[in-house]
Amino acid sequence: MSQLSDRKPFLVYENPTIEEALEVVRAAVSGRKTLIVVGNCCVDYHGRASSTLEPGERILIIKEDCSVLVHRPKGYEPVNWQPSGCLFHTHKRKGTLIIRAIRPKSREAVVISFDRVYAISVLSLIDRGEFSLHASEEDMQRAVLFQPSLIEEGLKPITYEKMVDPGFIDVYGIDRDGKMVVIEIKRKTAGKEAALQLAKYIGSLKLEANREVRGILVAPQIAKGVQKLLVSLGLDFKFLDPKKCTEILREMETKKLMDFFQETPGSPT
Amino acid sequence: MSQLSDRKPFLVYENPTIEEALEVVRAAVSGRKTLIVVGNCCVDYHGRASSTLEPGERILIIKEDCSVLVHRPKGYEPVNWQPSGCLFHTHKRKGTLIIRAIRPKSREAVVISFDRVYAISVLSLIDRGEFSLHASEEDMQRAVLFQPSLIEEGLKPITYEKMVDPGFIDVYGIDRDGKMVVIEIKRKTAGKEAALQLAKYIGSLKLEANREVRGILVAPQIAKGVQKLLVSLGLDFKFLDPKKCTEILREMETKKLMDFFQETPGSPT
Repeated sequence: MSQLSDRKPFLVYENPTIEEALEVVRAAVSGRKTLIVVGNCCVDYHGRASSTLEPGERILIIKEDCSVLVHRPKGYEPVNWQPSGCLFHTHKRKGTLIIRAIRPKSREAVVISFDRVYAISVLSLIDRGEFSLHASEEDMQRAVLFQPSLIEEGLKPITYEKMVDPGFIDVYGIDRDGKMVVIEIKRKTAGKEAALQLAKYIGSLKLEANREVRGILVAPQIAKGVQKLLVSLGLDFKFLDPKKCTEILREMETKKLMDFFQETPGSPT
Repeated sequence: MSQLSDRKPFLVYENPTIEEALEVVRAAVSGRKTLIVVGNCCVDYHGRASSTLEPGERILIIKEDCSVLVHRPKGYEPVNWQPSGCLFHTHKRKGTLIIRAIRPKSREAVVISFDRVYAISVLSLIDRGEFSLHASEEDMQRAVLFQPSLIEEGLKPITYEKMVDPGFIDVYGIDRDGKMVVIEIKRKTAGKEAALQLAKYIGSLKLEANREVRGILVAPQIAKGVQKLLVSLGLDFKFLDPKKCTEILREMETKKLMDFFQETPGSPT
């Protein structure tokens, strides 16, 4: 408890000299604090690629895990950054504070040179809150297209966002027995409306194709009484967790990158 | 000039009450300042997907273009963010400062609720510096694989990083006349060493394949005297700008995403 009450979550040094700034930055980095430096700087990056940023007023953030961000006053993306685990070399040269953030494994370096520092904030933040992300319906649809066995073995998607008279079908395909399948995806609890909507799509498709059509309602959970409605409408329900879809999309992103290189035909020798 | 000297690039409000914080945030947002709020908050996101972040001490940045970032004390990525052009609704409810950043087009909202504010920094930053990014050799290689006409019409890459006795060939392929081609890529000025390295690869391949092999040195520029050396070695030079490669890779990323959906076979109806 005394540790907590002694803690100063926020300390600010306004208009420090370059010497003072150097001292504050060194102490904060070695003490594993989070650091926000506001001032006029230029930035160079050297590694597999390289970049230069001409002088201007920016925000430098060094986090307690030794990750680095340089932010301009516009745009949500940092102009330069380094992941966690950087090593820092700081020194003064010709009236300039030079902060070199080096990624030891890849020998990449971001070098930030301040000729003027307006303020340095030193933060000791406690953050143990859990972050939960839930996929969108579009994400779930993409995950099903990428990995149809999420719904059932042997399912082959043919198209998505297929237009039928009452609206757009999320996923449309053929099951292992060659039957047409219509899939309706909900990212929250599937209610009565979702079941009726799916039944409408099937009615429209049956008229159009003049053959049997299966319907599967896909959602993380089902509202009370809807299971009974589904049975009476002759529709199936498949549980699908949006979190699982998020994981599959991450795998997909990785796979796409690998596939790109594997697409070039093998060497003839 | 008086405008510049009147400017206060950095103002800080330490330990404001929730009422004071509300006032500072409102004035800064309507005055199109860049704003850094440090305090204890929770964050909710609602849109196509959704997320929740339990309470903890974080850094909120609102930029002058109305983009938003929420940073935890670890990790280079923001935990929540919104692009430029957000609308802000701020109010106080039950002792909490609530900042709602709404993306009007997509109706997505990030809601940040502070029950404690340690400090608010209000920044007026001037940043007109130009940012220049130069591609890596690996980027240039990928661009050539993706769009071989960068080197010459009719070139068909067969493989990359092909191992021969003296090392790895950057790109290896067949030209429009069916001749074998070896490509060596440099992202800076190609010097004598690059030319000799390419000649070695070709020597090794000629022995292996027992057929004619062309060599092309690819770089944004060539060192003095190296053109003459290339001619004497029977090698070609092709100018390639790393910036052009960066542009092509961006196009490629977009195309890959579109291809993913076009890969699913067309509807039979």
